[in-house]
Order: sequence, then structure tokens, then C-alpha cells
Amino acid sequence: MGRIHNDEEGTGGAAVNHAQQKSSGRLTLPIQSGMDERVGQLIGMLGADWVRNSDGTSLPDTAAQWGARIMSTYFPARGDNEFALAHPDETTRMFLSSATVTAMESSPLDIEVAAEYYHKQIAPDLGVDTERFWQVMDRSTGCPLKRSDWRISTVPRDAADCDDDWPADDPRREVVTVTIDSPERFHLYSVNFMAKQMWDSTQMYNYLTNGWEDDPQRKKEIPYDIRYPATRQFAREQLTRWLEDNPQVDVVRFTTFFYHFHLVFGADGKEKFVDWFGYGASVSPKAIDAFEAEYGYRLDPEVFVDEGYYNSPFRPPRKKFVDWMDFTSRFVAEQAKQLVDIVHAHGRTAMMFLGDNWIGTEPYGDYFAGIGLDAVVGSVGNAATCRMISDIPHVSIHEGRLLPYFFPDTFHPGGQPEKEAWSSWRQARRAIVRCPLDRIGWGGYLKLADEAPGFTEVMQSIAGQFRAIHDISQEDRPATCGVKVGVLNAWGARRSWQTHMVAHALPYEHTTAHVGVVEALAGMAVDVEFVSFADIADGVPDDIDVLINVGEAATAFSGGAAWRQPGLAQAVRDFIARGGGIIGVGEPAACPGNGRFFELADVFGVDRECGWSLSTDRYFSLQPHFITGGGIPGHGTIPAFDPQGRPGQVTVVRDSVKVHAAHGQSIDIATNCFGDGRAVYFAGLGYSADNERLLYRAIMWAAGREDSYGELPVAQCPQVDTAYYRKANKLLVFNNGGTPVTTRLSSLVAGEITLDAGESRWFDID
Amino acid sequence: MGRIHNDEEGTGGAAVNHAQQKSSGRLTLPIQSGMDERVGQLIGMLGADWVRNSDGTSLPDTAAQWGARIMSTYFPARGDNEFALAHPDETTRMFLSSATVTAMESSPLDIEVAAEYYHKQIAPDLGVDTERFWQVMDRSTGCPLKRSDWRISTVPRDAADCDDDWPADDPRREVVTVTIDSPERFHLYSVNFMAKQMWDSTQMYNYLTNGWEDDPQRKKEIPYDIRYPATRQFAREQLTRWLEDNPQVDVVRFTTFFYHFHLVFGADGKEKFVDWFGYGASVSPKAIDAFEAEYGYRLDPEVFVDEGYYNSPFRPPRKKFVDWMDFTSRFVAEQAKQLVDIVHAHGRTAMMFLGDNWIGTEPYGDYFAGIGLDAVVGSVGNAATCRMISDIPHVSIHEGRLLPYFFPDTFHPGGQPEKEAWSSWRQARRAIVRCPLDRIGWGGYLKLADEAPGFTEVMQSIAGQFRAIHDISQEDRPATCGVKVGVLNAWGARRSWQTHMVAHALPYEHTTAHVGVVEALAGMAVDVEFVSFADIADGVPDDIDVLINVGEAATAFSGGAAWRQPGLAQAVRDFIARGGGIIGVGEPAACPGNGRFFELADVFGVDRECGWSLSTDRYFSLQPHFITGGGIPGHGTIPAFDPQGRPGQVTVVRDSVKVHAAHGQSIDIATNCFGDGRAVYFAGLGYSADNERLLYRAIMWAAGREDSYGELPVAQCPQVDTAYYRKANKLLVFNNGGTPVTTRLSSLVAGEITLDAGESRWFDID
Repeated sequence: MGRIHNDEEGTGGAAVNHAQQKSSGRLTLPIQSGMDERVGQLIGMLGADWVRNSDGTSLPDTAAQWGARIMSTYFPARGDNEFALAHPDETTRMFLSSATVTAMESSPLDIEVAAEYYHKQIAPDLGVDTERFWQVMDRSTGCPLKRSDWRISTVPRDAADCDDDWPADDPRREVVTVTIDSPERFHLYSVNFMAKQMWDSTQMYNYLTNGWEDDPQRKKEIPYDIRYPATRQFAREQLTRWLEDNPQVDVVRFTTFFYHFHLVFGADGKEKFVDWFGYGASVSPKAIDAFEAEYGYRLDPEVFVDEGYYNSPFRPPRKKFVDWMDFTSRFVAEQAKQLVDIVHAHGRTAMMFLGDNWIGTEPYGDYFAGIGLDAVVGSVGNAATCRMISDIPHVSIHEGRLLPYFFPDTFHPGGQPEKEAWSSWRQARRAIVRCPLDRIGWGGYLKLADEAPGFTEVMQSIAGQFRAIHDISQEDRPATCGVKVGVLNAWGARRSWQTHMVAHALPYEHTTAHVGVVEALAGMAVDVEFVSFADIADGVPDDIDVLINVGEAATAFSGGAAWRQPGLAQAVRDFIARGGGIIGVGEPAACPGNGRFFELADVFGVDRECGWSLSTDRYFSLQPHFITGGGIPGHGTIPAFDPQGRPGQVTVVRDSVKVHAAHGQSIDIATNCFGDGRAVYFAGLGYSADNERLLYRAIMWAAGREDSYGELPVAQCPQVDTAYYRKANKLLVFNNGGTPVTTRLSSLVAGEITLDAGESRWFDID
Repeated sequence: MGRIHNDEEGTGGAAVNHAQQKSSGRLTLPIQSGMDERVGQLIGMLGADWVRNSDGTSLPDTAAQWGARIMSTYFPARGDNEFALAHPDETTRMFLSSATVTAMESSPLDIEVAAEYYHKQIAPDLGVDTERFWQVMDRSTGCPLKRSDWRISTVPRDAADCDDDWPADDPRREVVTVTIDSPERFHLYSVNFMAKQMWDSTQMYNYLTNGWEDDPQRKKEIPYDIRYPATRQFAREQLTRWLEDNPQVDVVRFTTFFYHFHLVFGADGKEKFVDWFGYGASVSPKAIDAFEAEYGYRLDPEVFVDEGYYNSPFRPPRKKFVDWMDFTSRFVAEQAKQLVDIVHAHGRTAMMFLGDNWIGTEPYGDYFAGIGLDAVVGSVGNAATCRMISDIPHVSIHEGRLLPYFFPDTFHPGGQPEKEAWSSWRQARRAIVRCPLDRIGWGGYLKLADEAPGFTEVMQSIAGQFRAIHDISQEDRPATCGVKVGVLNAWGARRSWQTHMVAHALPYEHTTAHVGVVEALAGMAVDVEFVSFADIADGVPDDIDVLINVGEAATAFSGGAAWRQPGLAQAVRDFIARGGGIIGVGEPAACPGNGRFFELADVFGVDRECGWSLSTDRYFSLQPHFITGGGIPGHGTIPAFDPQGRPGQVTVVRDSVKVHAAHGQSIDIATNCFGDGRAVYFAGLGYSADNERLLYRAIMWAAGREDSYGELPVAQCPQVDTAYYRKANKLLVFNNGGTPVTTRLSSLVAGEITLDAGESRWFDID
């Protein structure tokens, strides 16, 4: 059994003091001018080996003196308005929809196409063939109108609403209206229009958020499109020049490549639509033509506008859009490779920021390897976002930028930056122990962090813990329970760890009950793979033990109409019948028809009640089960199960099913045996320590491995987790919660273990 | 202004003492043998003018002596097993589905077709052409198999499971299996089979509930089908004979006519499927053939089995089923008329019980008038069930049987029959004041009621209050606010007051949030009409002020695909735009497509978020409104709004919409102006006094009549209601709650009014 090795961290950051631990490395620190000597002290104290600039800061000229490698941001698709203004045809574009307007009369209907958009960002593009690149949609019938049924008119925009530095022919100087001469009364209409993106979305966000808009020193950057020849040449030449001008830069951090994720602002200057995965800004007449030449069919604007949903990742993907993703990703990889090659030719390291203009890079896609990057860096908001970075293949360096950002919104009198830092670390650590980031770092103004009392000690402690995981584990991965989970949805491996993610780790009330599954898996001692419906339609791969399908009906994650495709349900049934496991959360395999709402109602033994079968009597009683630890949630000492979301109204539909938690007549947890396999249903599974534990037990049971549950050490208290490193024969025990606990492990270490809030501790295993 | 007239009722039943009130009449009392003298006393004390027997009791021979009219139950479609056994081809039949079975192998798949049914009730009918009247369904593809792909086999049932009195050829003596020789592996299969109904469903329910099954004195009655010639002749002859044998009977209470609502029991003897509206037991080979001859197309079993949903009223009705309803209703009316004519020829009154074998009578349908009934009687569970009875056209007497039934389940030591009686009365009274029943009554064993301490006084008080409503109002209807509400769903007037009703007033957790709307309307001072989608597709009738569409997506009540039909949405928009009102509850007009989930999202200004539009930012703030009384629920002194159901996750989709209640990001109450009209959205509206008040205010606002709100007296306290009778110039003020209140009215009566729990009080208006 184990003995306590040493104590690394308290809530407040006890000094790190571990024999095997390196005191430096794996850490990127943002630095800034004006605090030169102190920068050097902090680099030494924290053991930073890389330094970087941040948005709005510049690297001090003396950056090279501390021996750290220097990382600098680089923007290949914006930043030179002189070039942008000289090449107005190469501005990046989007397909957007006007407001949907009801024709209250049959008299001519005017729709000001961009009325709902921020006029400094979005300009309708009248320089394109409007018959091909604009569309007027009858949103009552779903059909486009003939071009002859509508016309375009323009009036000058009020001069007070225009910036002085806009050229006379700036498209933002016009207000564009589409008129439908003879609308059907009480039909709904909207206009799909090609728009020029006249202001980079992230820059605009920063400007609006920080009130920089009226600062004459700052230029509103117009993005340009690498699809066009002048931009292509310019991007290469500019990068070459920049590398030559900045010999001190070791690591070029592309922020990012060419196409920003879909982010547009409303007329009121507030965010209007944001899809971190959105390909909305990857279009142009040239690209659409190139696509048609290659694929043999034309994409009309509606393919992108998609009834106004813009191919959100929640929409079951349609072939045309997937073709476009593929087409664009291939193009982005080719073009990005050119830039990466230039970086390498100059002997520098090429790093990609996972965000901003990352569209088309698809780090888990088919073309990412071809870019030839050395490193990726991204913001870590929780465990899933951490794994999204640390699992990326084909790069050797994965860096996670921890929270909080050193910005005044957190670093001000009364702020609690240490609390945020610990919370961020506790969430990220769950993932880091399973698949370590190679590096961590922070962003923002170092001066703010330095001035916050005790904050540098927090950084020191976190850096120490992080390095200890690498050092003490001897770069080994911790043991898993040996069960491989396949997360099943429309996106599969291509969008690994990105299931239900919406703009990073921002919490969406709507997805609470579903996003918790991936968040739980990101820190769980199981092997995880993401598989698409297409991947398994001919048979579930042999190495998968348990499938998990989680999501809301009609989404890409639950699957929607994908379950109509011949063979899919049969393949899953075959897998379960032969002894496989499946876990469904929310409305798994929902595809109403043939007498059931869940296509796999026979497998789960439960089904969603949508009202149609209320006449059928449903009888069940609550039974204890291995998954709930032998009790019934809400009874005795077991806390009530909280799915943390809008619970489905789910009923029993097979006699074999057993129910383990319910509220009223709606089932929350159920199990069913199907052939030699097992199925588990959860109404929802928002992230919490309790729900993570339930999911782990469900996985073990579904895999038929409940007898070996506890062989890997499991703490009695669900907020305590363990990672066992076989090579080093060390056990890391860590408290994910913000409160102290005393608990016991199921194996390897005997006796009670008391851990402070967030504390981690290493044990030698004999 | 008004002055207090007199006080009628306390919680415990203060004596009725009203000058204008008649002390007898309008009351039916169940009587029984063995308490003759006391029966006479009770009749006198309660003022009963009719007496009746109940199931399991017989009328005393002395019944005639008290001068009351005598009502007796009569069963035209069961009761003579000798006849039933002599005519086995005339047993009533059903189309049923076997269990849906997954083919785990491609080897022959056996399905014991009736395995899930109670074998004493359900016998597969092998005497019919199984190619026409049986079907094997592939529930993975939705297609029936060819007859040659399956075969039927039988084995004798274990003798221990058979009753001794079953004839040797009783079909229940066989266990029937369908074998599919070459199923597709992992497809699902079920068998649609024609079954004989070997035991009347209601009788069976009573037997199983009361433990009478093994009582040799009681015969399990086999129902017979009036569609067949011997039964038809027998029914008429038997009724004639019975009338001649029972000259003392004044009122023949048909219980009911020919086809029982769909009610079958499971193998465990527990209720398996119950649809109080279900036409499942109205089928036979003869009827199907007659239908085909008339309508020119064949109905296959799947039309009735309907994927296992059996055309539940929640299913958007399909043409074939509506044709069948029409066909059957016409037939039932013709046949029932023959029996009613016989009753009339004998000088008796013909009354129909609204329940049991009522299928095809459709009291609000096109053929009901043709039956020629004098009276209807039904069980009153709440306000909606009361209105369902009291609004029935074409009969002159409407009687409501109040709760509790005088059965030992309520009348036992420790039971609270008085409490149930008051609660039932308080609920029914809301409806009775709007559209009075002509009579009330109770059922069961009078002896039990007589022995319960104080219960006869409760009956006396309720009867007095009831008679007072008739007498003091001078048979006038109370004033309404002048607004006419049209409840819009697939069923329309044909199923008036039956919206969301499932087996009487039994509460279904699933429909809580929707059924409250009709319950509220049943006691509201508004005019109510039920309209179907077809009724308004060419234009909403001029006399309707406010449409209400309430229900869950994809149901007949919300509408589902009905909203795809050209013109419907346009007709509603036209109505609203010209100044009409609409109130949507739950998922109104849900029909996902063309960029919205609610077809009328533009009218309501809100839409259901199903995940697809999470990338669109939604901004709203809570605003006070007339509907919420000028405040925001949950803020200040206004109680939080409780939709009482699974709330939709609903978002704002038009800038014009105003939000008045929400939980988190999900909208609970919103209003929107559309053209000259107004729309109101509620996430749900379970029945409560608060929600009833919200709905009333919403109706007034949607009708543009908020300025005249309060002209009819409205109590400050929502649990107090009023009814103003103009002809008599009297105001009834009544407390619907079980607690005392002190409140004020908006008009007609000044000053505070204090009412005991449940109390009602009459005021003279000067």
C-alpha cells in the first residue's frame, strides 16, 4: 500500500517542495514594457521558459535578455488597412440573412437587408452577381423567389454614421434595400445576401468591450481573403518581412490563419450571432466557383444561411455543408502550410492559436497534419477545452492558457483573481492528469498579476503542480480502467471534445444537461474516442466497449434523421447484443417514427413521451443498482439525482427495464439488458462530481466490468479523484472541490486521507 | 351597489335558508334495498325527485312509493351470456398490437400475439381472414410483411388458466403465435391482430378492483356487437321485454350503447391501455367491409393500431381515422335511435350515460341529435368535465354525478368523504354557475353515505346551493365579459371541452401544464367555442375575439403538420393583423421548419429553442404588464409564475416582443403586437386560481379590452369568483378555495367581503 509522499498545495498556495520536481520550464509568461527588472525576477521565480506579448501589449526590446524563448502573435489575414483598402475585392465575405419579415399586405415589401447588423462591420456586397450570390426566400414555403420578383435599391447612409476615414466608395456608406413587388400576404420573407466583413470580429469585440472605438490611434482592421491572389502574395511577403524584422522572435503564434469563426454584431453593437465552429466567413465568389468546378454542383446562399441557423454544430450536418467544410479545410491547410514553411525556413517554431481565425484548420480533421505546425495553444476554460487542446494530433507542443486573463475585469480591488485561478486549475487539472498539456501559460498584463497580493505565489504553486505531474509521472499516462468509450454523434473524431461546446466553455443554460458528459469524460480514467454515425454504420469498431449518445432530439449530437439511415440502428443493436454497452443521455437516438421516439427504445427500454402514448399505462418502481451505489437517489443517504437541465418526459416501454431514479412519472436513470449487452439511460447529466461518479459507474456497468470497479483507486468522496502512474508507481490523489474532505480509497492506499480544498498529494505505491 | 342577501354555506354545511329557494327537485339519489324507511326520510330531507340504482345494487321493490321518478341502468350490449355464447361470431372485436419484438437473430421469430394481454379478456380471432384482418409489421421500416412471410400456430392454454364455464371452442383456450420465418436481424416486428373482447371492460375493471373475479354468482359478461343481425334483433326485443317487465322505471339510463371506449388489461390483470375516446373496440369484419363499400377504400389493421398509439386524441387525426369516426358515429346514432324510439314508445325517458359504451355517440358531433335522447348523465370530476356535460346540445336534461362515489374506498373510518364532496362541489360549481347542469346526483351505496357522520348535511347544503343557482338566477346565464374565445385544435367543436382530457378528469402529470387552460375556461366569464384548424383555414369566424392554441408539439392540440396546410397560418395572421387576439400555451402552432419551430413565431415573437439557434444571441429584460397586474411575477408582492409542467425552452425572436416572466433564459410569459392585434405566450398554464386569473387578464388584453377589465366584478383575491345575473340583478360571490378569504370586488359591491372556505353568497344589486 501507499504512503504519503508529500503535500504540494493548499488552497492558498503552500510552497512546492518535491525532490524530483523541476523548478522551471513548461511555462509561458506574458510580459510587457515598463517593468523590466521585475519581469526578470518573475521569470526566475515562476520558472518561465517562454515569454509572450498579449493583445494590446508589445514585447519589451529587452525581452531576449532573460534567456527565455520569445513568442509573438502574428495575424496573417488582417492588420494592414492600406493593403485592404487597395484591394477591396479581396475583403472577406459572409452569407447573411436579413431579418425575416412578415408581409402584412400584398403591396411591395421593403426589406433593409442589413438593418439588424452593425453597419461598421457588415456591408451588403453589391459588387457580386446578385442573381447568384443573393437570394430572396419565401420563408412560408421555403422556396427562393425568382430574381425578377425582387429588386435592389440603395440610399446613402447618414454621414454622421460613417467614419471619416472610410473611402468614398466604402460599401458601408450605402443602405441597401430589397423590394419584393408582389409578396404573398402573410407569407414570411428574408433576404440571403453576400456581405463584406469590414471589421475583424475579434478586434471589433475588443474595441467594443474596451471602449476603444473612438480612439484615433487604433485602426479598425479590415480582413482580407487568402483565396484571392494579391492577398495570397501579400501574406507570404509580409510574413517573410516580419520574420526578418523580428529576429528575436522564436515562436510565431498564428492568431490564427484566414477565416474567423462566425461572429457578427447587431445594430445595437451587441453580439448577434456567434458560432465558434461557424464557416460563415469562409465564403467568396471565387471560393464558390472553385467549389463548383471541383464538386460539380453549385452552392447557393441558402446552403450557408440554412434557414438562419447557419449550419450550427447542433444542426445535423447536410452533405453540401460537409463538402464545403472539407473543401475549405483542404484549402486552409494548403495555404497555412505555405506560411508555416516560411516560418520554418527562418528557423522559427510555428504555433497556432486555437480560436479566432481558426476556421478550416479542424485540428482533428484530415488536413491538419499537412499544415506542419509545431505547436498549438488555446484557452483552457474547463476539462473538456483542455482535452480539446492536449489531444490534438500531429503537433509536439500543446499549450493551455489558463484563466484568469490578467485584465482589469478580474484584477481590481475586490476582485478574486486567486479564487478564479484555483478554480480554473482545479477544472483543468482533471484533464491534465489524463492527457497532459505540454505547457501552460497565462495572458494579459503581467503588471496586474504582479500587483495582486499573493497572486504570484498562486502562479508559482500551479506551475509547480503542473511540472510535478510531468516529472513524477515520468511522462507516463495514468492507468485507465481499461474501458474504451465511444462518444457517438454526427461529428465523430473530426470534432473530438467539441461535443455541445458553444464558443469555448461558455455555459449555455440550454446545454447544461448534455455538456456535462464530455466534461466528465475529459477527466475520467477511461479511454475516450469520438465516433460518427458513419463510422459505425457498418459495425461498431471492436475496440469500443461502451457507446455514449447524448443530446437533444433533432440535433447533430443525438442524431436526428441519421437514425433513419439503413443499418445504423441495426449496427448498434448488434454491438449491444454481442455484449457491448450503451449509455444514452437526454434524448438519445431520437428519431420519432414507427411507434417510438427513440429509435433505440428497445435497447434502452425507455422512450420519450411526446403525448402520443399517454393512453398506455406505465408501471415502474424504483430499484437500487450498482450505478447508484446500491441505493436509490433521494432515498436514505444517497443524494437525489439532479440531471441539471430540462428533463425529458421519459417512460418505460419494456418490461425488462429497471428504474433507479425518477421525478414523478418521468424517468431519470434506468438500465436495461439487451442480448448480452447493457444499456443505461440518464435524463440529463450536467457536470458535477456526483454526476461524474454516476457516469463512471454507469460506464463500468455497461461494459460488464462492475466487478473490477475499485481496482483502480476510487475515493469514497466523488469530489476526490486519483491518477495512478504505473511506470513510476506513484498515485496522485486530488481534491476537485473547493472544500476540504476526508475520504478513503478503494485500493492502493489504506486509511483516511484528508485533503484541503483543491489539494493534490502524491503517494508512493510499494 | 349590492347588499348582502344571505349566507348559504360554510365549510361544514350551514343550513340553507333562502326565501326564493325551492327545497326539492333537481336531485337524483341512489337507493338500495334494506333501508326502506330511511330512504324515504333521506329523499324528503334532501329533496330528491329521482332515485336510481347503482352497479351492484338493485332498486327496492318499494321504490315507487316515495313519489320520485325511478331511473334504472340498462346495458344493451352485454348482460346475456347465453345469447353471447350462442352467437360467438357477434362478439365485439378490437384491433390490437402484439408486443414489439426485436429480432435478435435471423432465425425464425416467434411472437405470441396476445402475450401482453389479460387472457380472460382478449382472444386472438382466428375465425377471420387473417390476410385481411391481421398484419405483421416491420417496425424498423414501417412496412407490413407479405402474408406468405409469416404463419400462425396455436397450442392449448394450460387448463388451470381457463375458467370452467368456457365452452370447448372458446377462443381463449388457445395460445396463438405468429412466426416470421426470415426476419431481418435487429429489425423490430409486431403483429396487428383482430381480437375478440371476451369480457366487458368496465365490468372487468369492477371485478378486478373489487375482487369479484372468483365469485361464482357473478357472470363475466361477453359483449356483443350491434353490427351483426342476431344482436341487433336481440337488443330491440330484450329492451322491449325489459320495459314491459319493469313498468316502475321512468328513466332508462343507457350505460351506454354499443362500443366501449378502448380499455384493455395486461397479462398481470392491470390496466394496460385506456383511451376514453378510443374507437378500438368498434371494429369487426362486417364493419370494415361496410366501410369499404361506402367509402371506396379498405382500412387495414394498421389504420387502427397506428404504430401502437391507437389514434389517441393526442395524435393529429388522419383522414382514414376521421372517416371511421364519422362512419361509426352515424351507425351508432342510427342504432341507438331504434332503442330510444322503443323507450319513447313505452312512455319513458331516455337518458345516456356519458362513458363506458359511449363510443360513436360524440355528443358534440353531427349525428348525436338524431339519436333523440332526452337526457345525459355523466361523472363530474372538475369544471371541464362539468361543462362537457352541461353544454351538450339536443338534450333537455343534463345531470352531473358528483363525487365521491358512495363506495368503501372513501366511506370508511378515517376517510374524509365530506372533504371530497366539498372539493368536488367547489370545482364543479365554477362550471355550474356559467352553464348550469339541470340536475345533480350521487352514485353508490346510500347506506354508506347515511352512516358517515354529517355527510347527509353536506349533501343537503350542496343540493340547496345548486337549486339556489337555478332559482335565484331565474334560469338566466350570468353575464360574460363579452369576449368570445375560440379554443383552436384539430378536434374543434366535435370534442368540445374534451381538450387534453384523458379518461375523465384523471390528472396526467404530462398534461398538467396544458389541461389547466380548459379547466380555467370552464369557469370563466367568457364565451367559449371550440374550433378546428379546418374551421378557420379559410378565415377565422367574425364572432371570435381571441384564439387559444395550447399543447405540446406534434399533438392534435398544438396541431403538428396541420400548420403545413396552405392558408392556415395566413388565416390566423390575417385575423390577428385585423385586431384579433391569440394566446399560445406550451408549444403553440409548433411545426418545425423554415427557420422556426412555432409556425407563428412572428406572431408570438417567441420561439422554441431546440438547440439549432443557440448561436443566436437573445436579449430580453423583464417588464411589467397588464396581464401580470402591472408587476413582474416573482418580484415584489407578485407570486412567481408557475407553469406547472415541463417548461418549454423558449426564446425571443422578434424585437417587438415583451417578456413578463422567465426562469433563467427560458421565457414563461411574453406579449407581442402584430398588426392591429395582440399575441400572448405562456410556457404552461396548469390550473390554479392564480393562473386562471392570468389567463382571464390575458384574454382581456389580447381582445384589446383591458380598459373594461373589472366592469364585471373581479375579486382582488383570485380564488374568489363572481357571477352576475342581469335578469334577476343578483350577484353570486363564491370562494373556490379551501381557505377563508377577505377581499374586495372591482365593481357592483363595495367594501370588504369575507368568505369562509368554499363559501358562496348572493348579493342583491340595486
